[in-house]
Amino acid sequence: MKAKCRLEGRQLERRQSHFTACLLVFLGSIAIYRTVVADEGMIPMSELGKLNLIERGIELTADELFNPNAVSLVDGVCRVNGCTGSFVSNQGLIITNHHCAYGAIQKASTTEHDYLLNGFKAVGLTDEIPAPDYTVRVTEDYRDVSEDVLSAIHPQMSFLDRTRAIEKRSKELEAAAERKHSGLRAEVAEMFAGKTYVLFLYTYLKDIRLSFAPPQSVGNFGGEHDNWMWPRHTGDFSFMRAYTAPDGSSATYAAENVPYQPKRFIQVAPQGVDENDTVFLLGYPGKTARHKTASFLTYEQNVRLPMIVDLYGWLIDVMTKAGNQERAVEIQHASRIRSLANVEKRYRGQLTGLRKANIVQTRTDQESQLKAFIDSDPARKGKYGQIFSELDAAYAEVSRETRYEILLDQLRTACRAAAFGFFIYDAAVERLKLDIDREANYMDRNWELSVRQLKTSMGDYHAPTDKIMLAGILERLQREEPALQNKVLNQLIDSPAQIAERSSQWIDQTRLGELAFVESCLTKSPDELTKLDDPILNRVIDLYPTYLKMRETEKEREGRFSHLYASLIEIKQQFLETSFIPDANATLRLTSGRVRGYSPEDAVTKTPITTLTGVIEKTTGVDPFITPLEVIAKYRAKEFGPFRHPKLGDVPVAILYDTDTTGGNSGSPVFNRRGELVGVNFDRCYEATINDFAWDPGYSRSIGVDIRYVLWITGIVYEAEDLLIEMGVTKQ
Amino acid sequence: MKAKCRLEGRQLERRQSHFTACLLVFLGSIAIYRTVVADEGMIPMSELGKLNLIERGIELTADELFNPNAVSLVDGVCRVNGCTGSFVSNQGLIITNHHCAYGAIQKASTTEHDYLLNGFKAVGLTDEIPAPDYTVRVTEDYRDVSEDVLSAIHPQMSFLDRTRAIEKRSKELEAAAERKHSGLRAEVAEMFAGKTYVLFLYTYLKDIRLSFAPPQSVGNFGGEHDNWMWPRHTGDFSFMRAYTAPDGSSATYAAENVPYQPKRFIQVAPQGVDENDTVFLLGYPGKTARHKTASFLTYEQNVRLPMIVDLYGWLIDVMTKAGNQERAVEIQHASRIRSLANVEKRYRGQLTGLRKANIVQTRTDQESQLKAFIDSDPARKGKYGQIFSELDAAYAEVSRETRYEILLDQLRTACRAAAFGFFIYDAAVERLKLDIDREANYMDRNWELSVRQLKTSMGDYHAPTDKIMLAGILERLQREEPALQNKVLNQLIDSPAQIAERSSQWIDQTRLGELAFVESCLTKSPDELTKLDDPILNRVIDLYPTYLKMRETEKEREGRFSHLYASLIEIKQQFLETSFIPDANATLRLTSGRVRGYSPEDAVTKTPITTLTGVIEKTTGVDPFITPLEVIAKYRAKEFGPFRHPKLGDVPVAILYDTDTTGGNSGSPVFNRRGELVGVNFDRCYEATINDFAWDPGYSRSIGVDIRYVLWITGIVYEAEDLLIEMGVTKQ
Repeated sequence: MKAKCRLEGRQLERRQSHFTACLLVFLGSIAIYRTVVADEGMIPMSELGKLNLIERGIELTADELFNPNAVSLVDGVCRVNGCTGSFVSNQGLIITNHHCAYGAIQKASTTEHDYLLNGFKAVGLTDEIPAPDYTVRVTEDYRDVSEDVLSAIHPQMSFLDRTRAIEKRSKELEAAAERKHSGLRAEVAEMFAGKTYVLFLYTYLKDIRLSFAPPQSVGNFGGEHDNWMWPRHTGDFSFMRAYTAPDGSSATYAAENVPYQPKRFIQVAPQGVDENDTVFLLGYPGKTARHKTASFLTYEQNVRLPMIVDLYGWLIDVMTKAGNQERAVEIQHASRIRSLANVEKRYRGQLTGLRKANIVQTRTDQESQLKAFIDSDPARKGKYGQIFSELDAAYAEVSRETRYEILLDQLRTACRAAAFGFFIYDAAVERLKLDIDREANYMDRNWELSVRQLKTSMGDYHAPTDKIMLAGILERLQREEPALQNKVLNQLIDSPAQIAERSSQWIDQTRLGELAFVESCLTKSPDELTKLDDPILNRVIDLYPTYLKMRETEKEREGRFSHLYASLIEIKQQFLETSFIPDANATLRLTSGRVRGYSPEDAVTKTPITTLTGVIEKTTGVDPFITPLEVIAKYRAKEFGPFRHPKLGDVPVAILYDTDTTGGNSGSPVFNRRGELVGVNFDRCYEATINDFAWDPGYSRSIGVDIRYVLWITGIVYEAEDLLIEMGVTKQ
Repeated sequence: MKAKCRLEGRQLERRQSHFTACLLVFLGSIAIYRTVVADEGMIPMSELGKLNLIERGIELTADELFNPNAVSLVDGVCRVNGCTGSFVSNQGLIITNHHCAYGAIQKASTTEHDYLLNGFKAVGLTDEIPAPDYTVRVTEDYRDVSEDVLSAIHPQMSFLDRTRAIEKRSKELEAAAERKHSGLRAEVAEMFAGKTYVLFLYTYLKDIRLSFAPPQSVGNFGGEHDNWMWPRHTGDFSFMRAYTAPDGSSATYAAENVPYQPKRFIQVAPQGVDENDTVFLLGYPGKTARHKTASFLTYEQNVRLPMIVDLYGWLIDVMTKAGNQERAVEIQHASRIRSLANVEKRYRGQLTGLRKANIVQTRTDQESQLKAFIDSDPARKGKYGQIFSELDAAYAEVSRETRYEILLDQLRTACRAAAFGFFIYDAAVERLKLDIDREANYMDRNWELSVRQLKTSMGDYHAPTDKIMLAGILERLQREEPALQNKVLNQLIDSPAQIAERSSQWIDQTRLGELAFVESCLTKSPDELTKLDDPILNRVIDLYPTYLKMRETEKEREGRFSHLYASLIEIKQQFLETSFIPDANATLRLTSGRVRGYSPEDAVTKTPITTLTGVIEKTTGVDPFITPLEVIAKYRAKEFGPFRHPKLGDVPVAILYDTDTTGGNSGSPVFNRRGELVGVNFDRCYEATINDFAWDPGYSRSIGVDIRYVLWITGIVYEAEDLLIEMGVTKQ
């Protein structure tokens, strides 16, 4: 129930569910509840000391992994927009996924210099291409601020006030920390809803440049067809570089800037790993729902996921058709399509997985055990007896409103002109307030980044697409009862026959697709904006009270869920007699496991290392299964250099391992037991799309590009030897 | 280029090509040509003595396998219509595939007693249901008659006369053999085209009854979805029983008939086999094209297969829609749909396989080697120098005519009324001739069987379907130039707008759908048939000269190809310095191998034994993945009896092995090294659909139902204990 009013995120998460665990249904394996909870894990830094690292096969101590008072492995890991990255040299060189660098490659590409198509190799530092929409975040420190945050609320508060109070206190703590630690950025993260809050301190680097990207036929080999799938043959990596001002401080792009010197960089291990070897990952997993109720899962399964799958399918279709007309439009829409397609396929996988593995039933059974535990003691029953009925009632309410709310949200998201208009007007209203009282996006500390994201997102504005989007969403709203009852909205949809024509006229007349116009609007007051009389901006202004109400409803719900889940976590910990790991929340986590295949169905085994021969076998010459001639030539000549897997006699391309990841782990370093880089995480197998809801050692598998493929493509195929030297790797 | 004028065969072959052997393209593994030819093998009985059976892991001697002078294993194997079967008791009990008994089960089924849906279990012999459309053929003897057959031709003959002469001499030999061996049936089979001919002697049994069939949700579990696929979970078996007159002679159904006593029956081995165990099969593989030219493969790949895939897709669609309206029609069309769908999917697999494995290129490369060998010696060049250019020219001609000819053939196949009409008129014309001069179908020795097949095929006549079929084929012909130039045909298609209406009127008025009418026609002369003035019969009579010409063209081509391929085989044997196995031709063959998985693609391994747990995992409750409640109950109760696989702890369902099979091997017994029954062959994996064109040890795999699943379903789930006792198997 997170606020959806931000500009559409550029983060590309990637995941995957095929899968045959319906055995669970028949064998009723609900008894393993405790074990599973104990085995899974996206472990926060604060919990590292509690782990038996030796038993996990990790040869580093907790202090060598993370130590706020000294240099540790974590200092080599960073966040690259919504993804994770690793510093792989003392000159700020970062390795992350091709799909994470995609926005930068796309923005640098023109029909003349098509780096998406042909790849990019910088000849020396000066040749590197600035990626102004990128920031790199390095975790510097953290501390628990739960007590401080929770002191701002009291039991008599309404749920809306509760959320507001927590937000405000968090902002105050962030502001205070930033004053104290000049140049760093502070962010409060909720670990357990309504219960645990941690203040993180970050360095934000703002001058990021593109160093090397393989052609997308390598970096996105298999495309949407193979996305969320194993076996995988995608070279999903790129190199970027972070720069600072000459004095080492964070700065936006300037010619005189110098490469950033990380406190620590990750050593590349060109020998890679083999089946059954220990691996571990550090990264910023975004969001999981392992502690949510069966009623939440039911809502997801029956209401939200099917609707998004349907809606996104349509959005993708509209943009794909527009792109088919013209390569320039295709490039414009590429990133948005890829982002939506990724979510759409993940949700389809989740729907299949939820149904086949019968996860709702499993969770219901778990809740029955917990309910029995609650009811077995009168005091417990008095305190916790109503949690489930209250949560169920809340989800029932959400379910009723969701279709309307999602469409209302898409009205100012799918239609880009409306998105820009909403940002402008919302900013104008919010920036009249005291800084601390504003929505986070419009606070001074975030304003520069928000404006940059706005400008970036204007890059894919295409009026003909926008007309179809606007009309299509309005037509869908026409079928929702609450929309018809909203007087302002009703005026837009009361003549179904005219929706398309009106939408077309408004988009023809709006100036919200013009960058100069939008920039001039950013300094105007709400009244001045109204006087501009722009047809799309006017519609947004008319609907603004509706959106404000939706924002309040969301905050009210957040307060309610926060309160209820805090109680649920409390009693669950008592019941399980153990502490457990909070759901992912985009903070730094460690997860460990082994390089390991799995059996997706009876009589089928998937082994955990794919090969270059597999790339060649999949190559049809038709997108997305094209392989560059340079790759084929080096393959035929068997020029594998030192990157040949000794047993397979072939260059390994991708590896599979049973760590616990989710979206946001894209680009995470895959470490061997000594903490050296052996791969870059980029996806999960299809069965593991439901990781977000439940984790299973049988099929929860993540996918990384093998470091040997990275080095072979970079150093041998495209001869970027200087990058290999910079990472301390030789080709011999 | 076999004559296609017979009534549509009921034989259901089943096969499969997914597959990633495009490595071949890159690695150019054409050098293994000789090895591959030596490794593959559907070995005729005449060659058994040359095999090293011990090396193959078979513990029987060649004489124990086949001995025309004594009882041998082969005497336990029979042909059941187009399939293979095994006698598994001394009371004529036969095990074959569910899809081979399908016609019998379908015919016995009504909406009241739906044995397709619910399965069938006879309570004692008297309860068994006659299957009048079935014959069982037992091989009694064979001898080489090549010299005798080839003495009928001389080099000056036209190709047409050549074919006719071979046909006539074969018939004479058959007639002489049948006079000599009263009660047996003689058939001359061409082993190598134009080169080797063998006379086989068979016992034909005509009173065949259905003993046991599982529900089709077991016997066809996975349906078309899983057809040609591994892993497989289909219980594709049924039991039938052969009867004779009380004196032991072959006879059609009569109440007083008694179970047939085979000379030998196959001992069932309830312990089954395990991975890597030796298995061998005996059966009647129908047709392969391993010795055909690259130009033939090109014709298949570019012309014939794509056209059939398209055409059959449409036929299936028409019948499926008709069946959706009414369960009775669905049952009527079920067998024909299944037969067409099976071919359609096989051809799709072959198209994929031909393209991906680049088989045309491989064969072209092989031919280059052979051509170089021919050209290297002037005498050889003089004798064989023109073979390839002549074959290529012949296929070029066939390619030009094929679309027209296939449609012309479908005109009297897809439209059932026309099929019946053609049979009637063709029979009337042919039966005026001397017996020896008639087309084989109409000779006295075949007449009874042909009439029976005609009557059977009338069972699925459904006028509304026939109207669509007739009009659809005519519309397609409308787009073929040769059809427009055929004056008679042109009259039927010259007014495109009227085709549908006319077709509908003719089908409304024809009496060819009425059994009594058709039976009365069978004794009429051509003139009398003309006077009946039946609208469909009239069209057939008008087109009869066209069909006669097509028949002549086919015989002419057969003569030409027979002549050319005889030369090709001759020089190929000289080049390879070895004799090799003739293409399959529906005569008895042995093939051996091991229970063995395979890797269909990089990082994916398929293991060779599936389990009951896999059935349960695949079960969705939606057709074709329904599992009977009885099966689920016994699974949950773990009532596996002695049929549990010791290592898997589960009932094995299907097994995979690397023997060399094709259509016609359906129902083939799968033997262990001692010649005991461990499975019943029913399919190939998808990659192996191209077995017909090329065999490869990497992916050519066949699929059988495991004897343990047969016995578990029969004895434990459906409690047909008497059948187990009859086979000498106990449930304990």
